[in-house]
Amino acid sequence: MNSLKLINDQVLLASRPRAEPVANNFRLVQCAVPELQEGQVLVRNQYLSLDPYMRGRMNDSKSYAQPQALNEVMGGRTVGEVIASRNPAFIVGEKVFGNGGWQLFHIIDSRQISSLTKLDKPGVALSAHLGPAGMPGVTAWYGLCDIISPKFGQTVTVSAASGAVGSVVGQLAKERGLRVVGFAGGPEKCAYVVDELGFDACIDYKQHRDLASLTEALARECPKGIDGHFENVGGVILDAVLQLANPFSRVAMCGTIAGYNGDPIPLQNPQLLVRNRMRMEGFIISEHMERWPVAQAELCDLIVSGKLKYRESIAQGLASAPQAFIGMLQGRNFGKQLVDLT
Amino acid sequence: MNSLKLINDQVLLASRPRAEPVANNFRLVQCAVPELQEGQVLVRNQYLSLDPYMRGRMNDSKSYAQPQALNEVMGGRTVGEVIASRNPAFIVGEKVFGNGGWQLFHIIDSRQISSLTKLDKPGVALSAHLGPAGMPGVTAWYGLCDIISPKFGQTVTVSAASGAVGSVVGQLAKERGLRVVGFAGGPEKCAYVVDELGFDACIDYKQHRDLASLTEALARECPKGIDGHFENVGGVILDAVLQLANPFSRVAMCGTIAGYNGDPIPLQNPQLLVRNRMRMEGFIISEHMERWPVAQAELCDLIVSGKLKYRESIAQGLASAPQAFIGMLQGRNFGKQLVDLT
Repeated sequence: MNSLKLINDQVLLASRPRAEPVANNFRLVQCAVPELQEGQVLVRNQYLSLDPYMRGRMNDSKSYAQPQALNEVMGGRTVGEVIASRNPAFIVGEKVFGNGGWQLFHIIDSRQISSLTKLDKPGVALSAHLGPAGMPGVTAWYGLCDIISPKFGQTVTVSAASGAVGSVVGQLAKERGLRVVGFAGGPEKCAYVVDELGFDACIDYKQHRDLASLTEALARECPKGIDGHFENVGGVILDAVLQLANPFSRVAMCGTIAGYNGDPIPLQNPQLLVRNRMRMEGFIISEHMERWPVAQAELCDLIVSGKLKYRESIAQGLASAPQAFIGMLQGRNFGKQLVDLT
Repeated sequence: MNSLKLINDQVLLASRPRAEPVANNFRLVQCAVPELQEGQVLVRNQYLSLDPYMRGRMNDSKSYAQPQALNEVMGGRTVGEVIASRNPAFIVGEKVFGNGGWQLFHIIDSRQISSLTKLDKPGVALSAHLGPAGMPGVTAWYGLCDIISPKFGQTVTVSAASGAVGSVVGQLAKERGLRVVGFAGGPEKCAYVVDELGFDACIDYKQHRDLASLTEALARECPKGIDGHFENVGGVILDAVLQLANPFSRVAMCGTIAGYNGDPIPLQNPQLLVRNRMRMEGFIISEHMERWPVAQAELCDLIVSGKLKYRESIAQGLASAPQAFIGMLQGRNFGKQLVDLT
């Protein structure tokens, strides 16, 4: 195998961003793939997932995860194929999910072998394991089912509704007989959310920059108020939702992309939590592994039956990953942002 | 009875406050106590409880309770004595708790008779049923036990720590083997909270007006971070707590007195809810009646045994109620604010 002298392209974190990440924060390097040791598996990464949480790791600050180290390969989830194995658990040709990072190849040691998952679900595309069948899908499922926990006929709102997580939240909510109202940026995304994904309505937040306007638009689509909200964005969207929240409503706090580059995103009226007896709960899906099997079973079934639709925004080649990532944080992607590494 | 021609002093809501309530928002009137009808009970109110929630009801806005009607008697919890009864469930001389309002006498109809509770716990003072043995005590108990739900050895913080609710939160927390840090305004209240109530520390928020200073002071007292917080105030205190919150910490949102007069009290960093996987939950104790018996049993036992200390700030006479209420919202009271109506 190693006689082929494989060359690995990698993207390193070159410097930490001050606000928005820029291309100079990343550095593309090449190195030879080392010889495979006993117990190791060599994977050729085929798709890399770009996710908003990566922005937080680029900072050197306290968070739930270690910061991304400088001058090391950017971390990230990948799907790919085993192309060499000195571990009996894997054979060449198997499709796998793993934390392969921003690079073409990765080697897994025997003690990390459990981080590699075989992908063999018929009818589910390889890339879907980075989207609706993977972390974004399970995140959507957990926030909706275990935190918002809505009852039939209630109203749920979702920010970043055309995104990898939000699109699944809304479709799972429709499966459960809920009224679902999304937020997205621009008429194209809003039309997709309603016409393709089946949301009851979608509000173009770019048309409603201030709280009064956004609240008024939201009130029109939520005549019975809001019983649950799935938050990916933060800022004025969350403020508007709280204005219309019903007693005992729940907010699943998944992310606050509006604040990822350091902009302040204060919650203007926390007193509404008391007035409406609300619960707001932040969560990280990797801390709820016990719920993954039941979530993935439903998600894969819905994908196979064609009921769960998803859209991918695929950048071609590893070198395009930094710009694709920067664009995703600005909302320029449409659907799950992936990088095709083949 | 009615041959005595009893005269009832009453305080009405004369107008709604614009920001801080002023004396002119209230009007003292007198009227004759009407003749008692079949099924009715006449109570002489002895103590009236003044509580921060009343400020919210003075506004004509959406909340969990109906607004206080203009030109009607201000609502409020009272303890008193039955002085006439045409209902077999009560006899003259019985001590009772009820929603007697800001007045000397109140009449209860037969269909509201269940709102009157007999008070017969030996060793518990009548006025304590408006404080540590009553609504404020049960509020403290529920927020601590059912929402924060701390584990032995964890750290809990409490705002308005010398107040009717906060003082009970801290003492219940010490009973449960927790580290407890309070916030109070001024050296006298802080000394009371530590020396008399047994908190581990108390931070004088008047000495730390900005977030950085308050967070630094709080960090010194919470070397292991904060696992739970009981919020009565809002604003910069809540911001500081979130800075130091541990993963999976909980905030019981009981009230936000800092914002009751209309001042904005934004939560500066809601993204910390995700980073720390926190839960923030607002509650209204009257919606959790099923927990009152177990809470009151513990609270009364602790009062009788002298383990639960409390302090009262008693205004003399109904006419002093408006000024006492205004002062309480400014933090001028020290302990549970009552009005002695006898």
